[in-house]
Order: sequence, then C-alpha cells, then structure tokens
Amino acid sequence: MNRPDSLNNHTANSPQVTTGPLIGSRKVHASPPSREDLAVPLREIELSNGEAFRVYDSSGPYTDDGARIDVKRGLHPMRSSWVTGRGGVEPYEGRAIKPEDNGGVGERHLADAFEVTRQPLCGLPGAPVTQLELARAGIVTDEMVYVAHRENIGRQQAAKEAAARLEDGESFGAAVPPFVTPEFVRDEVARGRAIIPANINHPESEPMIIGRNFLTKINANIGNSAVTSSVEEEVEKMVWAIRWGADTVMDLSTGRNIHTTREWIIRNSPVPIGTVPIYQALEKVDGDPVKLDWEVYKDTLIEQCEQGVDYFTIHAGVRLGYIHLTADRVTGIVSRGGSIMAKWCLSRHKESFLYERFDEICEIMRKYDVSFSLGDGLRPGAIADANDRAQFAELETLGELTKVAWDRGCQVMIEGPGHVPMHKIKVNVEKQLKECGEAPFYTLGPLVTDIAPAYDHITSAIGAGMIGWFGTSMLCYVTPKEHLGLPDRDDVKAGVMAYKIAAHAADLAKGHPAAQARDDEISKARFEFRWEDQFNLSLDPDTARDYHDQTLPKEAHKLAHFCSMCGPKFCSMEITQQVREYAAKLNEKGVLSSSDAVEQARKQGMDEMSAKFREMGEEVYIEKE
Amino acid sequence: MNRPDSLNNHTANSPQVTTGPLIGSRKVHASPPSREDLAVPLREIELSNGEAFRVYDSSGPYTDDGARIDVKRGLHPMRSSWVTGRGGVEPYEGRAIKPEDNGGVGERHLADAFEVTRQPLCGLPGAPVTQLELARAGIVTDEMVYVAHRENIGRQQAAKEAAARLEDGESFGAAVPPFVTPEFVRDEVARGRAIIPANINHPESEPMIIGRNFLTKINANIGNSAVTSSVEEEVEKMVWAIRWGADTVMDLSTGRNIHTTREWIIRNSPVPIGTVPIYQALEKVDGDPVKLDWEVYKDTLIEQCEQGVDYFTIHAGVRLGYIHLTADRVTGIVSRGGSIMAKWCLSRHKESFLYERFDEICEIMRKYDVSFSLGDGLRPGAIADANDRAQFAELETLGELTKVAWDRGCQVMIEGPGHVPMHKIKVNVEKQLKECGEAPFYTLGPLVTDIAPAYDHITSAIGAGMIGWFGTSMLCYVTPKEHLGLPDRDDVKAGVMAYKIAAHAADLAKGHPAAQARDDEISKARFEFRWEDQFNLSLDPDTARDYHDQTLPKEAHKLAHFCSMCGPKFCSMEITQQVREYAAKLNEKGVLSSSDAVEQARKQGMDEMSAKFREMGEEVYIEKE
Repeated sequence: MNRPDSLNNHTANSPQVTTGPLIGSRKVHASPPSREDLAVPLREIELSNGEAFRVYDSSGPYTDDGARIDVKRGLHPMRSSWVTGRGGVEPYEGRAIKPEDNGGVGERHLADAFEVTRQPLCGLPGAPVTQLELARAGIVTDEMVYVAHRENIGRQQAAKEAAARLEDGESFGAAVPPFVTPEFVRDEVARGRAIIPANINHPESEPMIIGRNFLTKINANIGNSAVTSSVEEEVEKMVWAIRWGADTVMDLSTGRNIHTTREWIIRNSPVPIGTVPIYQALEKVDGDPVKLDWEVYKDTLIEQCEQGVDYFTIHAGVRLGYIHLTADRVTGIVSRGGSIMAKWCLSRHKESFLYERFDEICEIMRKYDVSFSLGDGLRPGAIADANDRAQFAELETLGELTKVAWDRGCQVMIEGPGHVPMHKIKVNVEKQLKECGEAPFYTLGPLVTDIAPAYDHITSAIGAGMIGWFGTSMLCYVTPKEHLGLPDRDDVKAGVMAYKIAAHAADLAKGHPAAQARDDEISKARFEFRWEDQFNLSLDPDTARDYHDQTLPKEAHKLAHFCSMCGPKFCSMEITQQVREYAAKLNEKGVLSSSDAVEQARKQGMDEMSAKFREMGEEVYIEKE
Repeated sequence: MNRPDSLNNHTANSPQVTTGPLIGSRKVHASPPSREDLAVPLREIELSNGEAFRVYDSSGPYTDDGARIDVKRGLHPMRSSWVTGRGGVEPYEGRAIKPEDNGGVGERHLADAFEVTRQPLCGLPGAPVTQLELARAGIVTDEMVYVAHRENIGRQQAAKEAAARLEDGESFGAAVPPFVTPEFVRDEVARGRAIIPANINHPESEPMIIGRNFLTKINANIGNSAVTSSVEEEVEKMVWAIRWGADTVMDLSTGRNIHTTREWIIRNSPVPIGTVPIYQALEKVDGDPVKLDWEVYKDTLIEQCEQGVDYFTIHAGVRLGYIHLTADRVTGIVSRGGSIMAKWCLSRHKESFLYERFDEICEIMRKYDVSFSLGDGLRPGAIADANDRAQFAELETLGELTKVAWDRGCQVMIEGPGHVPMHKIKVNVEKQLKECGEAPFYTLGPLVTDIAPAYDHITSAIGAGMIGWFGTSMLCYVTPKEHLGLPDRDDVKAGVMAYKIAAHAADLAKGHPAAQARDDEISKARFEFRWEDQFNLSLDPDTARDYHDQTLPKEAHKLAHFCSMCGPKFCSMEITQQVREYAAKLNEKGVLSSSDAVEQARKQGMDEMSAKFREMGEEVYIEKE
C-alpha cells in the first residue's frame, strides 16, 4: 500500500471542499507489478466479517484520510515527472491572461485568481506527445500502466470466473479481455478504440481510460452560468461529483470569471476535465455568435490547452448544408454549441470555421494532448427528432473528422444523443461504431421520453443503461434539474448515482469479468443480515443507512435478522436461511442430492418420506418465535 | 362532459386524503359512442395557448373538483348496476368478521371499522360471472366498453399517424391496434391475453385493462407492517399513489388490523386492489408457516373475495420438488409468499396445498371474478440468481396453472422477476409468453443490479422500461426504500414517477399510436418557452415548477425566453427559433428548398450566396440583446 508522500507536503488549511473517506471505506493504493513507484488509488470497503472489498475509486486524495488538502495550492502534480521524463515537451512562456478571459468582469466581481502558477508545457514538433502517438510508437506510457492496473481491480480475484462471465455476457462485439495488460491498453489506444484524456498541463490527474473494452465511465457536468453560482461552489461540485463516482467532469461555465473558475477546478481535479471552448469564445465577443471568428476561437483553444483541459467538445460536424435539415424538427437545434455554430454559418452563409479549420485545431490540440470530444450539435432534443437525417448527417461528418484527427495524432471520442426512444437507441451505437471506426462513444442519456422534467436523471438512466450495454464508453449524466435549472449539490449527486447505476448495469450485461463481484458481495451481506455491510457496499452508504434508520433507528436493529418491511416474525430471508439449513441436512442423508432424486422420491410416496423428515427433526422450524 | 351525479350525494366531510386536481388540470369525463350513461374519466391539461391536452387518468374522484369525498362512506359504487344488471349473481349473508381477521388485535389497538356495509355478491353456478367467461360467451360488458374508451384517449387525434407510429415502433410480436374497439377488448380478454381485474364486490372501481396490446400499466404496493403505520396512512397512500398515476394498488399489509385496513382501502379505491392472501392467512396462525392449512387459507380467500379484492397473488408454483433448486443461490428465496410455502412444504414434506388445491381456489375466485396473479415465489433476489432453474421451473408450472385457471373461467396474469441483469431480461418475457399462452406478464422491476439500495426505483426503472417494451403488461413499482424500509408518501410518489416513466417509454418504443403525442406536446411547449405548459404537461407539475423556481423564482421568468441553464444571452432554443425564421425566409426565396439545392448552392460559390443573404437582412441576428 503506497501513498504518495508529496501529498502530505501541502499546507494544511481549513477545507473548503468535502473531504474524508466514505463511511466504512478507506483509501488504499496498489502498485502494478514491478512498478512500486506507481500508486493506483482504490477504495477498500471494510466488512463486518473481517473481509474487505475493493472498488474503483475516482475520488482523488479528497477521500484519503492521510492526504492534506489545500484547495489554494491544488493537488500534487503526480504526472509532471512522467510527462517530462519521456521527453518531447518543453515549458514556455504561456499566453498572458486577458480581462476578456473572465468575461471582462469588473474589479468588484472579479474572483480571486489561483495563486500557484507554472509555465505550460508544449509538445515539440516531430516528437510523439499524445497517448495515441506514443501508443503507435510502441511506447507503453506510465499512464497506460496506471490505467491497466486501475481497470483490473477485482479481476485477480475473479480470474477463475472470467471466462464464464465473458461468455455469459452479451457485449455486441466488444473485445473485453479477462485481464487488462498495459500492452492491451496501448493497443486499444493505438487503434483509436480507447482514449486516455491527459493534457500534459494537467499533471494533477489520475489517469483513466475511456473505451468500450474497459469499464463504462460516467461524466458529470458542472459550471456556473451567467445567472447564478460562484467559483467556490463549482470547485466543491467537482469534488462532490467525483466523491460519488464521476470519472470525468465537464466545466460548462459561461458568464464571468470563466477562466478563473476553470483554473481552480483543474488545479484541484484528479479526474480529466472537459470543456466546450466555444462557450468562452462567445463570451469574448459579447455573446454574439455572428462576431465569432477563427482568431478568437484559436486564442481560446490555446488558453485552455495551457490551463490543462483534457478534452474539448468541438461541434465541427455542424455544417452549413445540414442546418436546414433541422427546420421541421419539433425542437430544432438544442445543443448550445450547435446552435451557436448554426447561427454563425447561416448569418455568414459560410461553412463552419470549425470544420474548415479542423486541421489547425488538430495541430493545436496535439501539442498538449487534448482529446477531441466531437460534439453532436445536431442531436435530437425531442423524441420526435430522434435518428433523423440531421443527426445522422452530422454523425457521418464526425466519422470523417475522426480519421483526420487520428491522422494528426489526436485522441478522439464522439458525442451522442440526446432524446431517443428505446427502440431507436441501438442503431445509434451501430452507426457510430461504423462511421467513426470504433472511436469511443460518449453519450448524453439518452432520454427515452420527453414527459418527465424533474425526473430526467431517471428517463435518461434507462437510455444510458441500454446504450452503455450496447457499446457506449462513457455516459454523460443528466440531473433532475435538466430542462429546468442549474443543478445544485444534491442534483449532482442524484445524477452521478443514476449514472453509476447505468454504467454498472452495462458492465454487468457486457460480462465484465469482475463487475458482478460487487453485486454478489452486497447480496450476500443482504442475505446474511449484515446491514452495515449492505450499506457500505452500496453506491451511497449514507442514504442507504438513512433510509433504513427512518423506520428502524435503533443500533440493535442493524444486527437484527429482519427489517421494517416484513417485521420480526415474517422475514423471507430468515425463513430461507432455515430452509437452507434443512436442505443441507437432507442433502447429507442423500435425500436431496439431485432434482431427479427428489422427483423420484415424490413419486415413491409422500407419506413415507414425510415420516422420515419428521424423524430428522421438524424442530428446525418450530423454534421460530 | 358527463359527471356521475351520485358522487355529489356524499356527505361533505373534512378530507382525510389528498383531493383536488393537479395544478393546471381538471377532471373531465367522456362517453363512448351511444353510451351516454358511461362517464370515462380523463384529465385535461389546459394550455396557455388556448388548447387542451387530455391524458389517461387513474386518480378517481379525488382529483375532481366537483366530487364530494367522504372517506367514511367510500366511493360511489358505479359498477353495482352493471354487475347486477347482467344477472348471474346474487347477494348473500357474508362470512362474519372474526377477531383473527384483524390479527387478534386488542380493543385498545383496534382500528375503527368501516361503517357502511352491504351484502356481498356471488356468482351463481352455470352463469358466466368473470369477464373471461362473459367474453367467451360473446358478451361485451360495460367494463369492456369503458376500458376501450379509456384506452383510446388521444387516438382519435392521432388517427392519421397511427399506422406510421405502429410501423415505426418495435412491439416484438404484440398486436396493438390503431384504435381500441369494445370488440377488440372482448376478444383479447376471451383469449386470456388481457384481464380486467374487477371483483363483483368492488363496484367502486373504474375498470381498466392489463394486456400487452394495451397501454402499459403500473402497480404501487402499499400496506402496513407489524412494525409501523396506520389505517389512515395507508388509505392516503392509496389515494396518493393513484393521484400520480398508479393503475392498481396492492395492499401488502401484515400484522394487526389487516382486515379493517383493507376494507377502508377497497371502499375508497377507484383502482383494482390486489393482495397476497397468504400474508393474512399466516397472521391467523400466529405467523407460523407450519401451522398453515387449506382451511385457514380458504377462509381467507373467501373473506377477501367478499371484501372486493380484485386480484390475488397466489404462489402455487412453489412446488416441493423445486425448493432444493434454491439451495445454492446467493439469496435463496426472497419472496415472502415463496418462502412461507417453501417452509410449509419442507416441514411437512408435502406438495404445496396451493398447487394441490388449485381447482378449488379457481372455483372460489371465479364466483367473485377475482383475477389470478400467479406469484413468482422463486424469483431471483440477486443478479447471481437470475434466470436459474428454480425460477424457470416455477414459470413452467405457472404456465400449467394458467391453463387450469382458464379452463375454470378465471382471469390470469403472471408475476415476474426480481433481480435480472439487462442481458437476461428478454428471455424472461419470451419464456413467459410461450409457457403461459400470452397471459399478461406482471413484473417487479426487474432490478438490473444489486448495488444501489436507496436508488432501487432507478435500478428497477431501467429493467422496467426494457421489460415493458419487450411485452410486460403491468410493471410493479419499486420505491427508493426497497431492501431498506417501509415506503412513506414521498417514496410512493418517487416509485410511481419512475414507473410512469418506464411504462410510457415502453409504450413509445412499442409504437402505441397516441403515446408520442404527449412527448410532442411537451417538447413544443419547451421549444416555445411556454414554461407553465411544460410544467403542466409533465408527469409531476409540482416538482418541475419547483425545480425551475429554485433558480429563477420570479413569475416573469416563466414568460422568459431563457432559463437558468444558459442565461438570457445564450439560449440554444432562442437561437434555434431565429435560425428557423431565417430558414423560412430563405425557403420563400427558394434558396433552401431542398438539401440538394443547398449542396448545389454551396458548390456554386459561397461568396455570391453570402452577399445575397446579407442583402436579405442579417439584422435577424443582430437584434440579439
């Protein structure tokens, strides 16, 4: 169990964010074979029977009792030495921060700048910089070793069942391995079938991988808007989202203090951060899409590359020729980025500059290893608009751009719909895989109906579970506030929970070798009335415990062989336990050795058997209070 | 718009339950052609654009502003005249209520008896009594006419698209008609492919139908337990559950006052009530399964038939020979009824009396038209146990019993799993349809993972949406308290909402002709910034409005062309509206008449076109604040 010492070098400070382990858990670290220098984090759930169960952990040092968190200084830049160690990069004097980077906000409203600065790194020409380029060059990076070990949690223990699990699952053509080797990671990245979003200027990140042959990931969106919220709130939302399991976080801030908010988030984020650069570019031209141009966009890209954003949503598939395809839709264009670009294209009657400058965009992003998240600006915003020509025309263009980006050495994932009824989900995945050469699919929902605002975390979890099963690599969460307002802390947690469920359900259905281990563990705890273990093994121990205690608050009840649903005299679990003991007794005597034997026994005459059973001791049942 | 006058004859009383229409809605009634005497309830949502939208309404008179509710007197017995009118039944002196019916509760804890009593009805030998018998005899009952009209809500308006919708959907072999005629209902009931649960002693019920060719229904479970809750709470839970859309309610009460609680619920319930009679039978023998026998069970069946229970869960498929098949399961037998019967069978080493006495059970239930809900006592309670031999052996027996019940004139539905991962759901439906001759499938969840107690309404909504799509007729809800405690009011609502979503998503995917109309209506409202309409068209107007107001509380914001997510300058909907106006302008001039034209135009030269567009008025965009 290694713990990076450097974490303790931070100045102690009163935490402005949620820290401390989840109840019943502690942070541990594990090292890949022969790599004692790498400390892969995981969460160990301690069980009342003396055992422990380890789970994937995206929460970063915040849940580490031994870590000192100082939000003003940011996290330890673990990856700095990895990045510089492999060469091909150099520090340089970065772009100066301008007032418009923060929306031209006046002194009075200007947020405190993040104090710690360092020079940005940039890839040198000709040298491999991105994980894709390195993978193609046959180099297994530290990041690859790290994510391989991270993905393997539980697989060693499940090794014996791995083949059976994979056989039992249905992965629709995915190639999930029984065990993830660094070489497998390298190969998947080299093929473009997985990405490791890891800007060389975000050394604080704990590497993770997005691809259909790995665990299904989830993303949480945060971000202030012109209307509400502060820098502090957003940093806490990030910490809160990863505490409950978000694998990446997108900062969708608009309005003022946008640069500063992002700086605070990135410096404190152990997960990859994604953004939609056009949002900030638009702020720089006073919110008027018509005024956007390549120069302001390029300036924004560089600004964010230097800050360390790990992936950019770029709506380069919204082409001039597709816009009119949305005219008869029920909800037209619902993507912000998509509608901004549509407006730009129409007003100038020009092809999108994102499409036309795509080569240059690649060139910039490659130098920092910022991954593409090719945006679905024409995604359907209503059931009526699902799978229409506009949506699929854009997807075909995203396929074309995927190949361009790959040629330029960039990592790519593809964003997906939107609002889609259940029977139209699968074709989306099939088409995406085909058009985009199996580049990872990153889907929003999909929401399987439009009629439940305030419950869209649920409408979309249905679609997310299904699309994850079919082959989506990362699921973008939806919160209960979707369509209605800005998510607060509770909404973020509700969204993360719904999506952890969907992602895990997808892994189960695909037959991921170790996925079912957690289900089995919690079910065993449930069956054995180990209440505390049941809570602690669940996705949300706090709420599970709270719900239990609402009806049975006493501590003694957590040792009880019943719950409030059935009461003490009437518990099916309790009865079943007795049945099992009885069956075991019978089995010892060879009575119930097989189904056939029982059938035979029944035919031979109930009464005779019944006497024998009574003789064996009916008191097993009579003891019941 | 007919309203049953008799509702107004009730004594006014301070309501003990939630009454009044949903915000933005009012109760209306519609009559089938040539049946002015039938008043089928529906809910009319009034829109700000002067239009109105009608939705299916299971909430009963409680949401009718014109109805006087007196819980002490119960609802108007609308169906009494229908039942007696067709003959074949007679009133008789019912079974006397005994102290053990209420769990032998002492004076101090005895709940107030329901005051209004009437003699129970019973079918006469040789005459058709059940909807199945009547259907087979070629009789279209009032209930059938009523449910046909009820199912048709919105189909008249959607008539033109009906064929396209059905074609577009995927119903996996269902035979959903464009329009539901009473004759279609009769035929489906006669074939056993649908049931109308309607005990002749529950005349207060508003008939509804359960079958895969009708709208997907949902059930809400309520019920006190030995540990907590009161009669009043349970009646309010019933009213609350149907307010939000529960189509049937199961009273799973155990413990004391069980008879009285049920009486209050049935007399006040406009939806069919289901029970699990073995729960009460067990109470009568002091909670000891070994003491159960046919006599006490039969007595309980008759007691509940006379009260008016509409369907009974009967775990007659838990056969002696199957019990040992559960011995190696992770969670054994998790159904209460299943474990009670397993214990009984093993302790006596006898075949289940429910199985052996099945003919007699049919005979009793037929006389009152109580429908069978053949229980899945061996359903899996963990992902590990899904689709195992125990589960499917029982399902095969349920298929055998379905045919017996049909032979005896009884209506039948079949209960389904439990905990099932996504990739194992479909085979459940296929096997159920095959084994049980297309008798309606009534499924609990299924929960697609075990790891999220406190969120099992979501884990199960994923499975419910899918299984509903595949062919389940009614979805039994799961609340956030599943596995943890007894659901309270908020949990009941959360469960109903999750399942209304799943059921509607299933209807959409199957291609139900009028299902998408509501999605389209709410999406149009969303697109047109008709906030109030968006709230009121949603499944839960109160929460949608509340979530919106948390960020933008002012009334003026509900007329605003933006929301808190993007702020006033940056709304994709707003931008899209402008794009559309612009596209329309272009279209007038023939510029955007077709996709080809655009492509051609593009090829002919951007610059030329651009000038033309500018000339046409770029100010459309510049007006933006």
